[in-house]
Amino acid sequence: MGFFSYFNRIFHGHPSASKLFVICSLSSGGLIAHGDSPSEGGKSIVELNQKVPVKKRVVVLGTGWAGTSFLKDLDISSYDVQVVSPRNYFAFTPLLPSVTCGTVEARSIVEPVRNIIKKRNGEIKFWEAECLKIDPANKKVFCRSIIGENLAGNNEFSLEYDYLVIAIGAQVNTFNTPGVLEHCHFLKEVEDAQRIRRTVIDCFEKSVLPGLTEEERKTNLHFIIVGGGPTGVEFAAELHDFVHEDLVNVYPSVKDLVNITVIQSGDHILNSFDERISTFAEQKFQRDGIKVLTGHRVLSVSDRLINMRMKATGNDDSIPHGMVVWSTRVGTRPVVKDFMEQVGQGNRRVLATDEWLRVKGREEVYALGDCATVDQKKIMEDISAIFKAADKDNSGTLTIEEFQDVIEDVTIRYPQVELYLKSKHLFDVADLLKDADGNDGVEVDIEGFKLALSHVDAQMKSLPATAQVAAQQGVYLSRCFNIWEKCKDNPEGPRKFKSGGRHEFRPFRYRHLGQFAPLGGEQAAAELPGDWVSMGHSTQWLWYSVYASKQVSWRTRVLVIGDWSRRYIFGRDSSRI
Amino acid sequence: MGFFSYFNRIFHGHPSASKLFVICSLSSGGLIAHGDSPSEGGKSIVELNQKVPVKKRVVVLGTGWAGTSFLKDLDISSYDVQVVSPRNYFAFTPLLPSVTCGTVEARSIVEPVRNIIKKRNGEIKFWEAECLKIDPANKKVFCRSIIGENLAGNNEFSLEYDYLVIAIGAQVNTFNTPGVLEHCHFLKEVEDAQRIRRTVIDCFEKSVLPGLTEEERKTNLHFIIVGGGPTGVEFAAELHDFVHEDLVNVYPSVKDLVNITVIQSGDHILNSFDERISTFAEQKFQRDGIKVLTGHRVLSVSDRLINMRMKATGNDDSIPHGMVVWSTRVGTRPVVKDFMEQVGQGNRRVLATDEWLRVKGREEVYALGDCATVDQKKIMEDISAIFKAADKDNSGTLTIEEFQDVIEDVTIRYPQVELYLKSKHLFDVADLLKDADGNDGVEVDIEGFKLALSHVDAQMKSLPATAQVAAQQGVYLSRCFNIWEKCKDNPEGPRKFKSGGRHEFRPFRYRHLGQFAPLGGEQAAAELPGDWVSMGHSTQWLWYSVYASKQVSWRTRVLVIGDWSRRYIFGRDSSRI
Repeated sequence: MGFFSYFNRIFHGHPSASKLFVICSLSSGGLIAHGDSPSEGGKSIVELNQKVPVKKRVVVLGTGWAGTSFLKDLDISSYDVQVVSPRNYFAFTPLLPSVTCGTVEARSIVEPVRNIIKKRNGEIKFWEAECLKIDPANKKVFCRSIIGENLAGNNEFSLEYDYLVIAIGAQVNTFNTPGVLEHCHFLKEVEDAQRIRRTVIDCFEKSVLPGLTEEERKTNLHFIIVGGGPTGVEFAAELHDFVHEDLVNVYPSVKDLVNITVIQSGDHILNSFDERISTFAEQKFQRDGIKVLTGHRVLSVSDRLINMRMKATGNDDSIPHGMVVWSTRVGTRPVVKDFMEQVGQGNRRVLATDEWLRVKGREEVYALGDCATVDQKKIMEDISAIFKAADKDNSGTLTIEEFQDVIEDVTIRYPQVELYLKSKHLFDVADLLKDADGNDGVEVDIEGFKLALSHVDAQMKSLPATAQVAAQQGVYLSRCFNIWEKCKDNPEGPRKFKSGGRHEFRPFRYRHLGQFAPLGGEQAAAELPGDWVSMGHSTQWLWYSVYASKQVSWRTRVLVIGDWSRRYIFGRDSSRI
Repeated sequence: MGFFSYFNRIFHGHPSASKLFVICSLSSGGLIAHGDSPSEGGKSIVELNQKVPVKKRVVVLGTGWAGTSFLKDLDISSYDVQVVSPRNYFAFTPLLPSVTCGTVEARSIVEPVRNIIKKRNGEIKFWEAECLKIDPANKKVFCRSIIGENLAGNNEFSLEYDYLVIAIGAQVNTFNTPGVLEHCHFLKEVEDAQRIRRTVIDCFEKSVLPGLTEEERKTNLHFIIVGGGPTGVEFAAELHDFVHEDLVNVYPSVKDLVNITVIQSGDHILNSFDERISTFAEQKFQRDGIKVLTGHRVLSVSDRLINMRMKATGNDDSIPHGMVVWSTRVGTRPVVKDFMEQVGQGNRRVLATDEWLRVKGREEVYALGDCATVDQKKIMEDISAIFKAADKDNSGTLTIEEFQDVIEDVTIRYPQVELYLKSKHLFDVADLLKDADGNDGVEVDIEGFKLALSHVDAQMKSLPATAQVAAQQGVYLSRCFNIWEKCKDNPEGPRKFKSGGRHEFRPFRYRHLGQFAPLGGEQAAAELPGDWVSMGHSTQWLWYSVYASKQVSWRTRVLVIGDWSRRYIFGRDSSRI
């Protein structure tokens, strides 16, 4: 008794002590996944703040990967921060497919936002509400609490900002396919995963009831996944494991009636991955009896049927289902769409920012994560300005020496240059200016310069809508906010070739740290940095270690590892709750 | 990798190995709480069954304490058993109040029914459905699946039975108080507990929003519990701990605005407990700032107000609330009410059974747990028959020797005799016949005999609607089913005084093993057998051990203990999921 309450006190007082106590085997403790966490620059801002007592008001919309990693490292001694999100927790979304089948519990992958933000010295205000409208003209956001309609007090309020950080993610994209909203499950929120888990059990419970025909039982046990991306594939694999490791023991009478089908519009599943992984996954699914229908487009979904067209032949087909999980690409949220119209981006598909994550057309608004895309600057747009800036002697031609003077700024400002060099196996930017015979020392004029760089922009790729990108953007932006005062005087960014001077900050640069695709049966595939590909059982163990170390808190880390162990020992629970 | 999958295989193959592996510190392993588990008689039935191949069909309604403990020990080699319940899991209901505040997770207290019943050699069929109607005339029950309306196949089916076991529990009783169904939470199902947990967080999230008045924040943070029984009191205590140990750290701005009020119609809370416990609880609540309003009757509940009348003065009062949890006595379910009318019990409040748990008026139907009450036989009804049976020489008077011949059967058949002796501090039934001066050897005539036993029936008490009673009844009934064939030839029950012969089985006898009332802050009160009362921190540790040992499976035991430890180390989670 005394022992426990003693520890209780200790741990509540010193959260770090608990870390030592509970589990010591994990060496890596990066708190927000996929991103480094620099937190320099704090001190100088505190000093400045004493002279400038009015803090800038920052409003952050969203507590997903982008919003949370922004808040985690933000030095709030110089900002007055308010956060608005309809969810008062951060969810470790890469584990959502595991939640659908009870491999991991929903509560093990969430951490209250207040726990994450209260750790910082200072105060961040959090409001559990949805942002209804952004008013960039008046620098205001309008919000409404979505809970407790029956509780006292007005549900609507508005907040004023000096800086707005939009990190509200994307929404499900049905591509206007009829019946999808009504009859499909999605896999974006924790509640979605919980609902899928209940529905899978429902399908089994219904199928074993007396009086059903074999055909009816089979229909109810046909699980269809639309979308062969990482989420859809992982869910299919999880479901297969759940069925064959646990449910067949509990519902032995229908174990031969279960079918899992993945419908993919492209020619392969996991087509954003390396081809070897894609093939490995398809072969594994074939062995497991998971049917993969590639080259099929879904036309409509009804309560019992899914209708689709085979792209190659144009033939239509429909198959009965017990449950459909819709896991395709994402779309823009209405509030962002409305904001885009106000800032002159009405005809774009996704909200565009520059490389500093500033919304184009509104420099005091930042957008990161799935709700925005970084519109990268083409080098050819600025080619004349670069030439002019480099050509110091105004000779009309550029020597290698002159070019080397601007090379650093060019590669920082236009990351595609580096990608281009890599693709051409060149080691030095100066090599670009070499003539066809490989001789350097040649002077190029503006036309020659344009020609040398003409294929560089083809290397630009838009960033994927992943947790990794969002988290890195959050970390990047918080660093910019933290060193802002310092950088006003000593800008660290590259040279502005057109207008002169320097950018305050370096532009955001995404570092791809790899990507996992768990395939079930304790096997996974991974794309690792440096074009490495790893597949099989050992990769699953790599997956376990990475996902355990990337947890947002020690609490969730212990819970997730506990869930995995529980699954090994006792299997997954099939109670319908 | 190999290591884990090796263990995985071992544990799935030999569930008992996992028990050794996981945790070995708990000595007691009674699988269903509060009841012994005799399983004798199995062998003889198997032999008989080979001669009589047609198995009797047993339909069991409900998978709560009564139904599950009945199924757990039932020898199904001689019965064809089907189970119907809208929940495919057994829930350890005494931990529901802990689930409301996240001290224990919902999934840690549930175990799939199929896991419990598939352990037995043989097959028990389970259907996840609700029983709509019992048709005792045709020995049929009509059921409807409540899930998967969208799935293929008919939802309705009927089952025929030779024996029916009704164990579907009771429902919430609103006493027709207006607004209760619409505006109150209940605490009977796992889903109720999960909903309460979300609502508590909603109340806090709503209260910290900008723009609310202090009064509105206070209203939203006023939690009211109607009913001062064990469940209501435990919930109030849990909520107090949740607020003061965890939520005040997360919502510091409103920590002084929280109020918890318990409304009780009686003069004391926990009035089914010993007076010392009741007083201890009231004093603890007073220290904790939990308001207790005794002697108040709730008149109506609206979305913002609860209206009540003080019984003593007749004054009406209404108080604003953020959440009301209704935790009063229970009522009869409609399907049972309908059944009662069919078997001639239409004017009773609760379904009545005899001491062998057979429904009065339908001998092939058994009812146990909260849905029924044992209608105990009064000794005065049979007094003449007892006298006649005992008076072997037909002398019209009874000697002590003659009386002693029937004493054993009398005390088994009428347990109130023993209670009466205990209350009078007598050690021998024969003492009843002593005359006023304490002399024995006196012969009594029928009038004297009646006089001697006239106060015995006053000792009869109806059994409380607790898990303990239900579990013991389930164990008792399964034993009767298991030894039925044997007892047909060799009845083990007491003598039938009226009709002659013997009862096949001994009547059900409840053994009260004690009762806990956790009061928060690591303190609990307990009523233990032998009029012992224990209160304080050590009792809470007794509570922990008893509740851990009484878990239905090793899985839930490990999970519950894990949850308790997690709470100590990391506190309770305040994510709204």
